[in-house]
Amino acid sequence: MRTPKMLDNIAVVLNKPRYPENIGAAARAMRNMGLSRLVVVAPENPDPERIAKMATHAAGDVVHAMETRDTLKDALAPFGYVIGTTARMGRQRNEAIPPREMARKVVALAGENRVALVFGPEDRGLTNEELSLCRGFVHIPTASFSSLNLSQAVMVLCHEVFSAARDPAPSSEPRLASHMELEKMYEELGEFFERVGFNNPEKPGQRLHGFRKFLGRLPLRAGEVRLLRSFLEQIASRRA
Amino acid sequence: MRTPKMLDNIAVVLNKPRYPENIGAAARAMRNMGLSRLVVVAPENPDPERIAKMATHAAGDVVHAMETRDTLKDALAPFGYVIGTTARMGRQRNEAIPPREMARKVVALAGENRVALVFGPEDRGLTNEELSLCRGFVHIPTASFSSLNLSQAVMVLCHEVFSAARDPAPSSEPRLASHMELEKMYEELGEFFERVGFNNPEKPGQRLHGFRKFLGRLPLRAGEVRLLRSFLEQIASRRA
Repeated sequence: MRTPKMLDNIAVVLNKPRYPENIGAAARAMRNMGLSRLVVVAPENPDPERIAKMATHAAGDVVHAMETRDTLKDALAPFGYVIGTTARMGRQRNEAIPPREMARKVVALAGENRVALVFGPEDRGLTNEELSLCRGFVHIPTASFSSLNLSQAVMVLCHEVFSAARDPAPSSEPRLASHMELEKMYEELGEFFERVGFNNPEKPGQRLHGFRKFLGRLPLRAGEVRLLRSFLEQIASRRA
Repeated sequence: MRTPKMLDNIAVVLNKPRYPENIGAAARAMRNMGLSRLVVVAPENPDPERIAKMATHAAGDVVHAMETRDTLKDALAPFGYVIGTTARMGRQRNEAIPPREMARKVVALAGENRVALVFGPEDRGLTNEELSLCRGFVHIPTASFSSLNLSQAVMVLCHEVFSAARDPAPSSEPRLASHMELEKMYEELGEFFERVGFNNPEKPGQRLHGFRKFLGRLPLRAGEVRLLRSFLEQIASRRA
């Protein structure tokens, strides 16, 4: 699948990540969702081998191009719009929007702006001071008593951004059976029921009505109706 | 946040996972998204310590309640609707729906049905034979040349399901035929084809496969399968 152009303008910024595995896993999640710009700020242990192992070969390019900064302020300088992730209640949380709304906003902005998605450290998230450097806030809803893994949080936001960036490209369906094709099939079915005694003598149309109702609610394709009719013809001819 | 009730009816099935870390990370992803039923089929190395480390304390309950099965078929027996994940091009891929559409469908079904989301092993995904046990297919769109980590794929689908479940008032569906009810019908159908000579002698399973594929893509209800089976029994008994 071709990667929508505006995704090049969207970066993931990991602020003070503690574990190199999470950096690698974040790179892999990004790569799968068409993002390639990764910035890490003051990582606690940027062990290249442990990063590479989790990034896998697929995200080698993301890791190779990864930038490292000393402070979040430095890291955010080049960006026109910055979104901070927040898990906790508090001032910014009240303004936080859900991932889907964030993704629409970010994709709309990224045509003409460089946008950063900022994630805090594994154990405590972004501080209020760090959040004050952001212009928008996103919160990933979770079930109660839960705690998201850093790279899983990166995946959720990248997946939403990628979904928003893709054209809705309606899936194409094979041709459905026409009304006439269906009616011919019902007719044959009715004759067949009559012959094999599948009808209830007291309510002769009931069984056919059941089948009509059942088949009628299904999006039967033309080829499938052909298959059903050839089956009917076969069993009918063998009884002749 | 309160967990919507229907999520209790949705299980994640990991078929032949290779790495215990992915089982643990999947459990944690599920827990965060309000899912708690995890089934693993023939895991290569279900090392409890390595599973627990990635699950973290938060998902300890999911791991504790985890079920293990020898075969995918056994694992799927109790479910009314089974969705298989597919990454590759091919037959099932053409019918695969995107995660958001899958989530709406699954949430609507889960009010009255037990639903399974099935994931294949890390390196190769589900085989065609394994996919033929599924009634619906989901494909997670990714950028080109990418490969999703197993637990990241679990996260994407669980996040979509949780998001759909939080939407107000999804319409609920009558009970669908269970996997077992469907398999019994296919069995009877196969025997019947044999007897009436509906099989192509050179490709004996082809016609039944055609019917399986056709019926498998339909959301057949329990009552409809009963109707079909009583029809089969009737025409079979009249030929005896």
